[in-house]
Amino acid sequence: MSTSVTARPVKRAFNFNAGPAALPLPVLERIREELLDYRGTGMSVMELSHRSPEFEAINNAAEQNLRKLLAIPDDYAVIFVQGGGSLQFSSVPQNLALPGKPIDVLHTGAWTAKAIGELKKGFLHNIAASTEAEKFTRVPRQDEIKLSADASYTYLCTNNTIEGTQYHSLPASAAPLVADMSSDIASRPIDVSKFGLIFAGAQKNLGPSGVTVVIVRKDLAERADKNLPTILQYRTHIKEKSLYHTPPTFAVYILGLVTEWIAAEGGLPGIQKRNEAKAKHLYDTIDNSNGFYRCPVEKSSRSLMNVVFRVANGDEAVEKEFAKGAAAANLVGTPGHRSVGGMRISLYNAVGQDAVDALVAYMREFQRTCG
Amino acid sequence: MSTSVTARPVKRAFNFNAGPAALPLPVLERIREELLDYRGTGMSVMELSHRSPEFEAINNAAEQNLRKLLAIPDDYAVIFVQGGGSLQFSSVPQNLALPGKPIDVLHTGAWTAKAIGELKKGFLHNIAASTEAEKFTRVPRQDEIKLSADASYTYLCTNNTIEGTQYHSLPASAAPLVADMSSDIASRPIDVSKFGLIFAGAQKNLGPSGVTVVIVRKDLAERADKNLPTILQYRTHIKEKSLYHTPPTFAVYILGLVTEWIAAEGGLPGIQKRNEAKAKHLYDTIDNSNGFYRCPVEKSSRSLMNVVFRVANGDEAVEKEFAKGAAAANLVGTPGHRSVGGMRISLYNAVGQDAVDALVAYMREFQRTCG
Repeated sequence: MSTSVTARPVKRAFNFNAGPAALPLPVLERIREELLDYRGTGMSVMELSHRSPEFEAINNAAEQNLRKLLAIPDDYAVIFVQGGGSLQFSSVPQNLALPGKPIDVLHTGAWTAKAIGELKKGFLHNIAASTEAEKFTRVPRQDEIKLSADASYTYLCTNNTIEGTQYHSLPASAAPLVADMSSDIASRPIDVSKFGLIFAGAQKNLGPSGVTVVIVRKDLAERADKNLPTILQYRTHIKEKSLYHTPPTFAVYILGLVTEWIAAEGGLPGIQKRNEAKAKHLYDTIDNSNGFYRCPVEKSSRSLMNVVFRVANGDEAVEKEFAKGAAAANLVGTPGHRSVGGMRISLYNAVGQDAVDALVAYMREFQRTCG
Repeated sequence: MSTSVTARPVKRAFNFNAGPAALPLPVLERIREELLDYRGTGMSVMELSHRSPEFEAINNAAEQNLRKLLAIPDDYAVIFVQGGGSLQFSSVPQNLALPGKPIDVLHTGAWTAKAIGELKKGFLHNIAASTEAEKFTRVPRQDEIKLSADASYTYLCTNNTIEGTQYHSLPASAAPLVADMSSDIASRPIDVSKFGLIFAGAQKNLGPSGVTVVIVRKDLAERADKNLPTILQYRTHIKEKSLYHTPPTFAVYILGLVTEWIAAEGGLPGIQKRNEAKAKHLYDTIDNSNGFYRCPVEKSSRSLMNVVFRVANGDEAVEKEFAKGAAAANLVGTPGHRSVGGMRISLYNAVGQDAVDALVAYMREFQRTCG
């Protein structure tokens, strides 16, 4: 049996989707190259047994790559699970809440609201800070945060995709910090030892949707009631090295390739530098537009991952025109989240400077003709 | 931006893995063809927003293909979720158990044992039949099944991958039948209206791992306590058409391609005919080997999906030799599950008659030289 591919040119868009999002072209090319025959096995990665030595190597490489990139200490486990951040909204309290000890939450928008929704189903919790009164245009300042004396943990979302905000320094907390890092994991160096648990859907900076990374301090995983469904206990996946049941093998493989790519691009310091340059170029364009473009987010809380802005004072007809023209110019995914409107540009790791340059050129031209 | 693929021959194995398993070659070729640019979007399917019209069309097509193939009645929902069968072991009782009404279970091996393990965490249940005394070498006969008068539902696993057994007629049950159909869904026509719920990880007959199909009678989905985590309630995914949160988009896309392929191959009647021919050829080879190969499963319960057998009366050294020689002959995945030993040949939809012919030729030659 043999088959071959015919060479043909491929169109690629400038992709500013909020997630699932752009993947690095070299990673996609590698996937394509290996799709029918993974390194001489005669099988696609999708067709490998998850108990085969080939997949075990893929699984280990993905974990080791992440450990190296994020400098994850040995007392933390790294596991790959399914269900996305949305399952973690219940899994985290099911595993980590201690009887009688509240969960402190820093409320910064739509994603923490979802997490709070699940806490309301029987978990003692405390909104330790909220910027809702300011329409979530910033993250809370340290002096606004009222932590409990005996919290199970302190919960935050490090980057808020819909509101375009991001923490640029971590709040102090005696209780373990638990972070939804879905949209900024591996976009900059972090000090993992400051966290008790970090979770992240892969579909922004690490790979495709369908695999979720959980980094958890091993002692905290022992808090869970053993009566919890086996698959929902972190300790199960720690013990079985993410092979308790059939994992999403292809997504784990791609996560391995993406983390390899990040390492080759200079690791997190290199990626951070690029992300800062991309975001600066876009924010500068907005700030220097004489008010034609306007970012509602306080400068100290602006996200490097998701840049939100309004066009022509939020004139919806003009914003629609902006998105339509952008799409015609091969700039995909510029409209904001349907719940807030406006524009949103996601600048995850795999979005190149060339994409930002093309967008900025489009923005200037759009302003010139419409402004 | 453009890129191209260089033509080269590709090696393909005869793949008898138990799951993740072989995928149809035309499906893999299509995935490869579209990998960098899905139908002119300039993006991989993995890079599409799950809220985009393109992905909504993919999601709808996957559902509609399944509905057509399995002739699923309109009062049933079809949803795509994450977590595999292993998450369903707890999700099913969490959603469908009625207070004071036991869950009747037909115990047929390792997979029903896992399901029972989760029921033991607080769900009233009754082992209505078990073939454990016979080492699970058959499924229970109707006259052995002792159902409760008022069960919440009756649970069974239609095909037991490890033991190599399969139901060839459905047990009668007044309570809704709930089936783990992970390893034989879409391998033969079924009457969905006989079931209350069917679940299946995609990674045997429908696609890659990472997406799980749940087919549920809509009224049963309303049994669930609304205090259950939102993502674990079937009603959530029914209401949101499997887009409550970011789905495993690439796996859903492939499921759509595989179901399209099944339809083109004659639908379930056509696939069934092929599966019967493949299994017959292999069972005949075993049965006509003068005892060199021996299938421990009762003929009436033999699986068309997973053919288990011993070599040379279960001589482990010979069986190891068999597997080693098979691998050298490009026949992958012949060893049985590590918990039972022996050999196991999985003959899912995408395994061709050519693969079975090659295996049979190998088996005859192995017997000639070793027997």
